[in-house]
Amino acid sequence: MKTEVLDAGAIVNWEEQVDVLVVGLGAGGAAAALGARETGAETLVAERAGGGGGTSAMSGGVIYLGGGTALQKACGFEDSPEEMLKYLSASIGPGRDDTKLAAYCDGSVEHFDWLVAQGMPYKETYYYGQSGEPPTDDGLVWSGSENVHPFRDIAKPAPRGHVAAVPGAAGHKVMSVLCDAVDRSGARTAFNTTCTALYQERDGAITGARLETFGEARNVRARGGVIITTGGFVLNDDMLNAYIPAALKCSMRVAADGDDGSGIRLGMAAGAGTRHLDKVSVSLPVTQPWDLKAGLLVNGQGQRFINEDAYYGRLGDYALLRHEGRCWLVVDDEFYIKPEYGFELAAVGETPAELGQELGLPEGALESTIEVFNRHAERGEDPLFGKREPYLKPIQTPPFGAIDCTTENARYAVFTLGGLATDVDGRILDPEGRPISGLLGAGRSTSGIAVGGYSSGLSLGDGTFFGRRAGRIAGGQRS
Amino acid sequence: MKTEVLDAGAIVNWEEQVDVLVVGLGAGGAAAALGARETGAETLVAERAGGGGGTSAMSGGVIYLGGGTALQKACGFEDSPEEMLKYLSASIGPGRDDTKLAAYCDGSVEHFDWLVAQGMPYKETYYYGQSGEPPTDDGLVWSGSENVHPFRDIAKPAPRGHVAAVPGAAGHKVMSVLCDAVDRSGARTAFNTTCTALYQERDGAITGARLETFGEARNVRARGGVIITTGGFVLNDDMLNAYIPAALKCSMRVAADGDDGSGIRLGMAAGAGTRHLDKVSVSLPVTQPWDLKAGLLVNGQGQRFINEDAYYGRLGDYALLRHEGRCWLVVDDEFYIKPEYGFELAAVGETPAELGQELGLPEGALESTIEVFNRHAERGEDPLFGKREPYLKPIQTPPFGAIDCTTENARYAVFTLGGLATDVDGRILDPEGRPISGLLGAGRSTSGIAVGGYSSGLSLGDGTFFGRRAGRIAGGQRS
Repeated sequence: MKTEVLDAGAIVNWEEQVDVLVVGLGAGGAAAALGARETGAETLVAERAGGGGGTSAMSGGVIYLGGGTALQKACGFEDSPEEMLKYLSASIGPGRDDTKLAAYCDGSVEHFDWLVAQGMPYKETYYYGQSGEPPTDDGLVWSGSENVHPFRDIAKPAPRGHVAAVPGAAGHKVMSVLCDAVDRSGARTAFNTTCTALYQERDGAITGARLETFGEARNVRARGGVIITTGGFVLNDDMLNAYIPAALKCSMRVAADGDDGSGIRLGMAAGAGTRHLDKVSVSLPVTQPWDLKAGLLVNGQGQRFINEDAYYGRLGDYALLRHEGRCWLVVDDEFYIKPEYGFELAAVGETPAELGQELGLPEGALESTIEVFNRHAERGEDPLFGKREPYLKPIQTPPFGAIDCTTENARYAVFTLGGLATDVDGRILDPEGRPISGLLGAGRSTSGIAVGGYSSGLSLGDGTFFGRRAGRIAGGQRS
Repeated sequence: MKTEVLDAGAIVNWEEQVDVLVVGLGAGGAAAALGARETGAETLVAERAGGGGGTSAMSGGVIYLGGGTALQKACGFEDSPEEMLKYLSASIGPGRDDTKLAAYCDGSVEHFDWLVAQGMPYKETYYYGQSGEPPTDDGLVWSGSENVHPFRDIAKPAPRGHVAAVPGAAGHKVMSVLCDAVDRSGARTAFNTTCTALYQERDGAITGARLETFGEARNVRARGGVIITTGGFVLNDDMLNAYIPAALKCSMRVAADGDDGSGIRLGMAAGAGTRHLDKVSVSLPVTQPWDLKAGLLVNGQGQRFINEDAYYGRLGDYALLRHEGRCWLVVDDEFYIKPEYGFELAAVGETPAELGQELGLPEGALESTIEVFNRHAERGEDPLFGKREPYLKPIQTPPFGAIDCTTENARYAVFTLGGLATDVDGRILDPEGRPISGLLGAGRSTSGIAVGGYSSGLSLGDGTFFGRRAGRIAGGQRS
């Protein structure tokens, strides 16, 4: 979808006037509408699809929250905003927005209560696995690398993945609850409606937008602001090529139809700055059964490169971005892949040497990797990468097998993290860091909490958290 | 320096009118001015510093050209646009602009002749080393990884670094020649003059700029266009944090004072798209003597990760971006570091095990890396990374030493590659790929040939090549 920024001065009569116009009804848009309605603002939500949900509805429904939420307490876990901040700061790494991060950790308990107040159902039980999508309807999961090296030594581990009570992918539940709340709030929704243009005043202020429904356009004035919550750009090949070409190698793009970056392009054309457009969440396709973590993930030189018990988004990040998505998970007969798991083995061998040869690895490379690993594992140590029990076991029982984790043959799942630059209240910023009047944003069309180093639940998390703030700000500034 | 985009409609009288306004007098700006003058356009060049040169003048003065230039022929090397294209496509990798790349390779021979016609002096001799800054005044050098794995098997190797005849860093020679040519061309230059604002019409067209000289501002109308050639943003910490935070770890930022991204911010604020703002050139500080390439570059796990005979920009890229800038170059007494080289050793040991222990590497890791490498090297092979003779030798003669290549202790040199989106004629593009009327750019304020996978000479190369094109286009469209 092509977009443009037009001269607001050319509009004589707006066909419609509202206080707040929200573009997109995923998690960010729903929260923005609810935030706007909290201020009493007349609110319109334009959604491109025939119904609400967006990519959020396709997600695992995990919301990353902590600091001692009611659910964490009910499940017997201690947490604090400080420990949450320590974990997120370390796992997200350089380039993070410390102001947003602090606000997010400090406001997390209250935000959970707010989600519950919207009708979000949580079962007060805990699932042990490390997962973005628990196979159960348990409410709390490890959705990052909190309890593995190196993070378990940096911050006191606590599970922070809050999952609505639906077995399997709970994203549709999250979004049906939020969309119901939007309906109850009195916000109006317009489906099958795209935003194809923003209207900009000579001083740079955004005062409205052009909406199109089945080919019919109307110009809508937004007195308090337009909030862009249109999602990321993982479906836009040109943008991927311009910002993060490695993502094009991933065969599974985690996105609803709308994630073509239209909102990001609208914002940029209006003079917005961006942040971290090169950052993505990439998941390695080998996640369950959990015992797979006992395998050794090796690259094209037969070298390990990460503790295999890390969160699968961390594995995917390293595999794709540092090792060209060319790797295999080496297992032995102790947890040999059973046919029911459905993994195809790229190669099998009676010895590490034979397996390495079958994979086309340099002679001696895989043997030496396994030998060094085993020697330490027998003592319960992994000094190279810090893998821990119960997944730290020597690889020694033939036959040996290699699960194919190359991008060519395995389904890497990717979505984009970078987007428009916003402040802690969701105001979209120009390249000098000044807010563009009347333009706000949230969710994956903006750069949020995770600027790399993803943990599951951060997108629904910051989308709803900062979406709500953006809605309140826009609602409060209606004139 | 803060910048802004202002309403052109508010200007009643322009204080000055020209056909083409070039902002910045580095390699890109000089070529843009010369290109504009080729069309007879009245041309003004505004340069922030007290004289011309910019970062280009601080460079090694290498210009990456090929396809069979007169200099290549004089030195006895065969090359073709096709082989040049093959090498650059492979070394630059995904995300490259194939249209620009093809134009650059096809136009390279003519561009060299044009540079010579401007007065650029080249000595028709060849330097064997792989270098961005040959220690001699030889005219032709290997300035990338053309003759090493994997590129030597992808494209027929040819040296393509064209260096003006001055020993050592020849950048000042290149720029003094180009600045003299600008003076002769009849373009006017205004030094100590910054561009702090662009003027934009309601339809998005850029029609002029505000220039400031010692605090005094004047508004200059540019009938044919404003050409932004202000360089990259490696001196702007906020921008590095937003786009490529890893660069902040590098202690040597390759930049003249002006490289704060002001032109990129001006373009973005005017609604321009960007490309690859996360990309940088990073040089590992261990380059000479060439014999160092016989060492083994190992990461924090004692693993090798690249053929050490690759171009130092390729080594730096891998070291910083894939291994956190935490690595060491392991050498033995055969080419043990002599005091006169001035390298400090991070550790010394009588055995690989002792050296590994001194470095704090996991037990057995370095030993196994060296053992596997030696076993293959004795047969003249490096199946892991493809290092070749004359640098492929077993590491076996004690004592063993490790040269410190960590970002904390070694001077990594970095500059930015990403910038404003431009077409093959230097027109700056909006996020939909449409030219912004009256706005052009070249050099490191734009995204050019190298979008990663840098080879020395590509910045002066594409800056002058596309700068000249932008100048001709802007000059030709003056009204």
